[in-house]
Amino acid sequence: MVEHHHHAHAPLTNNGIYVIAPSGAINRPEQVALASENLKKLGFKVKVDRQVKLVHERFAGSDAKRIEAIERAMTQPMDIVMAARGGYGLSRLLPTIDFKAVADSGKVFVGHSDFTAFNLALFAKTGQMSYTGPAMVTDFGVKKPNELTADLFAEVMRGELEILSFESPGSDAFDGRGVLWGGNLAMIMSLLGTPYFPKVSGGILFVEDVNEHPYRVERMLLQLAHSGVLAKQKALLVGHFTDYKLSAQDRGYDIGSVIAHIRKTVGIPVVTGLPYGHTAAKATLPVGAKVGLATEAGMAYLVIHEH
Amino acid sequence: MVEHHHHAHAPLTNNGIYVIAPSGAINRPEQVALASENLKKLGFKVKVDRQVKLVHERFAGSDAKRIEAIERAMTQPMDIVMAARGGYGLSRLLPTIDFKAVADSGKVFVGHSDFTAFNLALFAKTGQMSYTGPAMVTDFGVKKPNELTADLFAEVMRGELEILSFESPGSDAFDGRGVLWGGNLAMIMSLLGTPYFPKVSGGILFVEDVNEHPYRVERMLLQLAHSGVLAKQKALLVGHFTDYKLSAQDRGYDIGSVIAHIRKTVGIPVVTGLPYGHTAAKATLPVGAKVGLATEAGMAYLVIHEH
Repeated sequence: MVEHHHHAHAPLTNNGIYVIAPSGAINRPEQVALASENLKKLGFKVKVDRQVKLVHERFAGSDAKRIEAIERAMTQPMDIVMAARGGYGLSRLLPTIDFKAVADSGKVFVGHSDFTAFNLALFAKTGQMSYTGPAMVTDFGVKKPNELTADLFAEVMRGELEILSFESPGSDAFDGRGVLWGGNLAMIMSLLGTPYFPKVSGGILFVEDVNEHPYRVERMLLQLAHSGVLAKQKALLVGHFTDYKLSAQDRGYDIGSVIAHIRKTVGIPVVTGLPYGHTAAKATLPVGAKVGLATEAGMAYLVIHEH
Repeated sequence: MVEHHHHAHAPLTNNGIYVIAPSGAINRPEQVALASENLKKLGFKVKVDRQVKLVHERFAGSDAKRIEAIERAMTQPMDIVMAARGGYGLSRLLPTIDFKAVADSGKVFVGHSDFTAFNLALFAKTGQMSYTGPAMVTDFGVKKPNELTADLFAEVMRGELEILSFESPGSDAFDGRGVLWGGNLAMIMSLLGTPYFPKVSGGILFVEDVNEHPYRVERMLLQLAHSGVLAKQKALLVGHFTDYKLSAQDRGYDIGSVIAHIRKTVGIPVVTGLPYGHTAAKATLPVGAKVGLATEAGMAYLVIHEH
């Protein structure tokens, strides 16, 4: 059960979405029109950059073409800039993106998965927040977009979502505030040791992943522990880890075992159940914004806007 | 074609091998006896620590039992300490291993894959060199061990190998000396940002991996570039990348494409063809020792001992 408490605020944006594809090529271009229709039904205007349908190797156009699309997105009139899909590709663009210009553009950036590199690099380089949540084609390019995903996306883009509450059985007791940051765990790790990794103290780190074996998830979380990053955070907020397959060798060592080991060895509060990951139902979350988080009686409450 | 020039030296060790299993559980314990026989045929004495056949979750015994085996290995009389297999497990032990004591023990440590964490952490913490090469059970627990692997292992353990030469078509022109370091790429990356990652300038970094998709290999190498590590090395030495499977989405973007992209963007010499990886034929290589490397007419020459 996921609940969202919302409230009318001054509008965050002009409800205009500009779509770019900074990562993988769109495999079924007809999904772009379908996604546009679904977003229009939610009350958004939609404009798709001409780069979105390009294909170069495994990317949505060459590195140069994808950079040009990001640059065009900064100056067009729509307030929201949304990534069409994840995949792989932003790692190549990081040294070329002018993050200062991105921050100064005033646009509200949102994407998923590979887009974690953009969210975190932007925050590391400029302190500017952005959003992780659905990707335009992946989540809206289907006949019936997930309702929770669509509702939360619309509410967050309108600045209306105040509290996201979700079932969180067995979570540690926690009640605190801090900078919310994170995203796809493999992408977070792909930035460690580089200038694109945010230096956050007292934050709330959230993670999810897909197709990652539990021992690899554990190895990544241990690396965050050994690097000193985890101990500096107030809490670890765990989303969905999906589509992994245990072998006989694992002897049942699954994601639950990994989280238990990390909880035991790292010693920061662990809060589970975040509705976020490579799942149809996913929240839209601010990356680099101060939030509140509290657990009580098997529930967790993520306070996104206080009023 | 791989050639090895060797020469009788003062013996490096007493030809005694002590076997421990710091990572994954041994799935077929009967392989331990077979591996011992095969190593004895090569002229080694072999003693197997009692921990090797333990099984705890996916590990060869609990973290505490695996640490105890490493400690016993430091004080027993055999000069060589060899890991039984890779898998996963050393990441958990790094904060508990007394690397100063390991270095002071004077033992010659050798292992493969997950053992990269041990090789690099030992070098980072103490400057002590160790070896990467075959694992006892994986490589010698078979009816007919690979001949090149066995010969090179025996020669290196006896301090006899001087030059390893291998076909290296298309490699950049290179002739230089530097500290050889590296191993399994995913394991190298799992240490970045932690105190277990060696700070090497002017080194020769070698890499291999298995079951890693080309885009993930590229992402790892780009992270090494963005972190400033690659630009500080004299050369990147590329071993085997095996057992990955391209999908239609890759549009043929394979490891060759990755290496070409890295060569173009990073600007350090790239030397390919190192006989090292998750393949039956693998060299035994020093990690943390100064070596020479040169390319000429489609061949590469790794000078391990000069005399």
